[in-house]
Amino acid sequence: MTERLLPRIHEPKDLRALPESDLPRLCEELREDIIALCGRVGGHLGASLGVVELIVALHRVFHSPQDALVFDVGHQAYAHKLLTGRRERMDTLRQAGGIAPFLDPRESPHDALAAGHASTAVSAALGMLQGRRLRGLPGHAVAVVGDGALTGGLTFEGLNNAGGSHLPLVVVLNDNQMSISANVGAIPALLRTSGARAFFEGLGFTYLGPLDGHDLPVLLHALREARTSSRPVVVHVLTQKGRGFPPAEADLQTRGHAMGPYEWRDGKLVRSRGGQRTFSEAFASAVEELMARDARVVTVTPAMLEGSALVRLQQRFPERVFDVGIAESHAVTFCAGLAATGLRPVCAIYSTFLQRAYDQIIHDVCLTGLPVLFAVDRAGLVGADGATHQGTYDVASLRPIPGLTMMAPVTGEDVPELLATALALPGPSLMRFPRGTLPEWPAGLVPEAPGAGQGARWLKRARAPRVCLLTLGPLAVSALEAAAAEPDWSVVDARFVTPLDEAAVLEAAACGRLVVAEEGTTHGGLGSAVLEVLAARRVVARVRLLGMPDAFVPHGDARVQRAQLGLDAAGLRRAARALLEEDAP
Amino acid sequence: MTERLLPRIHEPKDLRALPESDLPRLCEELREDIIALCGRVGGHLGASLGVVELIVALHRVFHSPQDALVFDVGHQAYAHKLLTGRRERMDTLRQAGGIAPFLDPRESPHDALAAGHASTAVSAALGMLQGRRLRGLPGHAVAVVGDGALTGGLTFEGLNNAGGSHLPLVVVLNDNQMSISANVGAIPALLRTSGARAFFEGLGFTYLGPLDGHDLPVLLHALREARTSSRPVVVHVLTQKGRGFPPAEADLQTRGHAMGPYEWRDGKLVRSRGGQRTFSEAFASAVEELMARDARVVTVTPAMLEGSALVRLQQRFPERVFDVGIAESHAVTFCAGLAATGLRPVCAIYSTFLQRAYDQIIHDVCLTGLPVLFAVDRAGLVGADGATHQGTYDVASLRPIPGLTMMAPVTGEDVPELLATALALPGPSLMRFPRGTLPEWPAGLVPEAPGAGQGARWLKRARAPRVCLLTLGPLAVSALEAAAAEPDWSVVDARFVTPLDEAAVLEAAACGRLVVAEEGTTHGGLGSAVLEVLAARRVVARVRLLGMPDAFVPHGDARVQRAQLGLDAAGLRRAARALLEEDAP
Repeated sequence: MTERLLPRIHEPKDLRALPESDLPRLCEELREDIIALCGRVGGHLGASLGVVELIVALHRVFHSPQDALVFDVGHQAYAHKLLTGRRERMDTLRQAGGIAPFLDPRESPHDALAAGHASTAVSAALGMLQGRRLRGLPGHAVAVVGDGALTGGLTFEGLNNAGGSHLPLVVVLNDNQMSISANVGAIPALLRTSGARAFFEGLGFTYLGPLDGHDLPVLLHALREARTSSRPVVVHVLTQKGRGFPPAEADLQTRGHAMGPYEWRDGKLVRSRGGQRTFSEAFASAVEELMARDARVVTVTPAMLEGSALVRLQQRFPERVFDVGIAESHAVTFCAGLAATGLRPVCAIYSTFLQRAYDQIIHDVCLTGLPVLFAVDRAGLVGADGATHQGTYDVASLRPIPGLTMMAPVTGEDVPELLATALALPGPSLMRFPRGTLPEWPAGLVPEAPGAGQGARWLKRARAPRVCLLTLGPLAVSALEAAAAEPDWSVVDARFVTPLDEAAVLEAAACGRLVVAEEGTTHGGLGSAVLEVLAARRVVARVRLLGMPDAFVPHGDARVQRAQLGLDAAGLRRAARALLEEDAP
Repeated sequence: MTERLLPRIHEPKDLRALPESDLPRLCEELREDIIALCGRVGGHLGASLGVVELIVALHRVFHSPQDALVFDVGHQAYAHKLLTGRRERMDTLRQAGGIAPFLDPRESPHDALAAGHASTAVSAALGMLQGRRLRGLPGHAVAVVGDGALTGGLTFEGLNNAGGSHLPLVVVLNDNQMSISANVGAIPALLRTSGARAFFEGLGFTYLGPLDGHDLPVLLHALREARTSSRPVVVHVLTQKGRGFPPAEADLQTRGHAMGPYEWRDGKLVRSRGGQRTFSEAFASAVEELMARDARVVTVTPAMLEGSALVRLQQRFPERVFDVGIAESHAVTFCAGLAATGLRPVCAIYSTFLQRAYDQIIHDVCLTGLPVLFAVDRAGLVGADGATHQGTYDVASLRPIPGLTMMAPVTGEDVPELLATALALPGPSLMRFPRGTLPEWPAGLVPEAPGAGQGARWLKRARAPRVCLLTLGPLAVSALEAAAAEPDWSVVDARFVTPLDEAAVLEAAACGRLVVAEEGTTHGGLGSAVLEVLAARRVVARVRLLGMPDAFVPHGDARVQRAQLGLDAAGLRRAARALLEEDAP
């Protein structure tokens, strides 16, 4: 057996020093390592397997970091990480303190830009190329963009400006004919025809392709040509998601995209997947029932049919479930149009991606009070996906918008009830829920009343309260646990951020000590809303705000991070006790 | 003299009842009225003059409101307003309680969607068409999109989805070869060639055009053809901004876009324009000095060279001032790329349009702490432009982002000083300032120290304070006036929202009564930041928050609105007195 090549590659110049005839073997080793790695620790397998030859060719032709390689999203970056000095630490991928899930310049100078959201690469790479020119620095800039990210408006804005700039930006279109789900819209069909050339040439680019993305000599030739271009150039590369790993090739949308650790046993893929129901699933089931009952209800998702558990819903209601592709701004404005005709659109979107539709929520939906229901998944800590994906800002940024009702369920049973409440409203609403499995009420502590209307829900009303825990979402369960052995601690589930139940806030604060906890920023979140009410009503109370910190929270185990941030039963207990101890002499 | 036609048109069906031979005369009357109207009350003259024939043809062929006419932005909608029952009220345009500056469904059923921001029409119209289909309602949907709005990513997201939907959406491309400024990027050149057909056909549309947008028979023929199409269709119409009014035709970028009232005297245009310097001009001058001194400083604007007073700057530094077109998301991510190469980009953008780059600010700039300086113009009340343009949410939505330094000048002298402070920072920063002319310190009350570092600035320190006014931005001037005759009132200018000067907040609150005033939402703004500090430090004080209300603020005179919201000297005085009176028995 010949010695492996990969352990000898510590940085891209080692790769460039190999004889070209060694590159196919290097690609084989990269695939082996990626498959073995994802088997051990999970990860975005499919995208990374699809671009092995492309990444080897990029590092062969371009000289990172002097040439900026800007990968869009970063799903596909494992081969890049393996070739840029991170091979020995790859087993720490997506874990606390370990290799980042996507790209991060603080991890390596070869990661030109932090990326976890789609469609940013063209704009950023254009900036880097322009910046190099102005500063008199040498170097090229390459944006590697998936065809899925091509439907995002930001990519188009970048292409329009790059084409008009006449700068020799290289855009590599990694076309695997998928976003996370299958692609939608006119662009995918266009890329299959000669129209692709006309499209990119119209935008001011030289067009090279389509090329077989697994044929190294072809790739090297095209990238060398692109590198010497004096004007913007698109290299259109066809790749196969999951290439080289049959289960991923066959099942691209689910297992092929991102998966947990797996085993390959007796020719079959074995995965241990918890049977527990997730919030996304509870949401999808509740929407399914609503759609069955009410023909006005339709569902819109920006490329997250799988992530938002909407696959079955789309199969049952193909005419009323719209996957608009990676296009969050459009998703929201499209919902505004639907709502204007009397429909009741449910816009299912992750908290972090909703940031891309902030203006559309304000300007297109809320300004005229159109009844769009935003179902905000992944609100709060997301775990392994890390800083780019944390659901931190939805409450603080959306709470000030007039007329938007904002709510959060604690358990799965709350979901259909809150959705029904939302649909009965005349205007816009938002339900936020976290990533992960559904919590359950602690044994013996199931609340008597399920909660109704737009008020808060008292989960525990002490007769002579000394401190009250006011929480948003599933933190109520932790608060109940924290207070279980404390007869004079009260617990109230806010349920609604807007309109905030002022009577409940005043009652909660009446004992003089209040802990407010939420999975979101404490700067402007529910806690601030409570402080605003108390200030307006001249209520004096000691208030402690718990939430996500004034720092970007990196990848790690969400349960561990919750404990570190005091957002679990022990943390709530500590916070309440600290308030009580302030009285001590 | 023949009787005028326009007074007989109360709704579009009256227009459809005219003989076709009357339409040129109707167009002439519309132009006369628009020119006279803008002369009396000011407004977006150029865009509206350019589309007179187009709007007449649209209302002739389509049956609003059963057919949805969705105008992008609404700059061009005056003819539409004159034809849909609002003629007699047009003199109230842009004034409090009067006709809205842009489009608003609450004003007329013929305004299919509220619009003031660009690039929303295609997505919204697609939603309306899809909604009509699902609900079994008749009717077409037409998106009227300027070529400037075509460079906005949202339009592209909409086109991709519309093309893929195969629904017979009609997109009318109103191509006047301008945004507000001249257009940028590859698209404008594309539209001048046969590539336009290939581009739109590639996106799944039938392409009709280019057509002379002032030739009624040609327009009517094309729109009738579009109306019977069974698939998506683009009607590409060439129009002339300012058509029929020589001064506007000749000077499209400034007077032709939006202007105040004017007079036409002795063959010359006479305008009274206050000679007072604006915040935008003070900002531009300060940046000009910085750019002259520091080659790393570059400036980026999304199509607001004129609005942000950057025309002279671009003339002086053509290589270092980038107008990226209507593409706010790209503007920010492009700045991230520039900053990554060691440049210090200044991103000049209006508060309301910054909402379109919320994710890019978080994900592309702040996550890795890139030193982009956001110059946020039109922060606070904007007056005649109304609800779509108010600068309400910047502080509340951006304050929670880790590492972003956020500041506000009071007068023009503060601008260069804060800009210099920002540029000395290693990370991202933001300076917000309002629309309008620069305030001056009240006579005899000029602060002794200009303020330095990142602290607050004490403007008046009472020896035995009974109440303190803490303000953001030019409100400090009103606060000084309010406190002028009150020996025991203190005034402090926050200057920085983040990092907040906690020592100053604690000193301000030490007297037990604090008024916090800002031109922005009170839900999560500076006021909330103050409450968070006081809660964390267990400081008990009576705090009154003044700011923009929990409702969308409509068009009107900003000075009047300030008074109504208590955001002037009298309002601040009332708020402080009310706090003092709470002690009264």
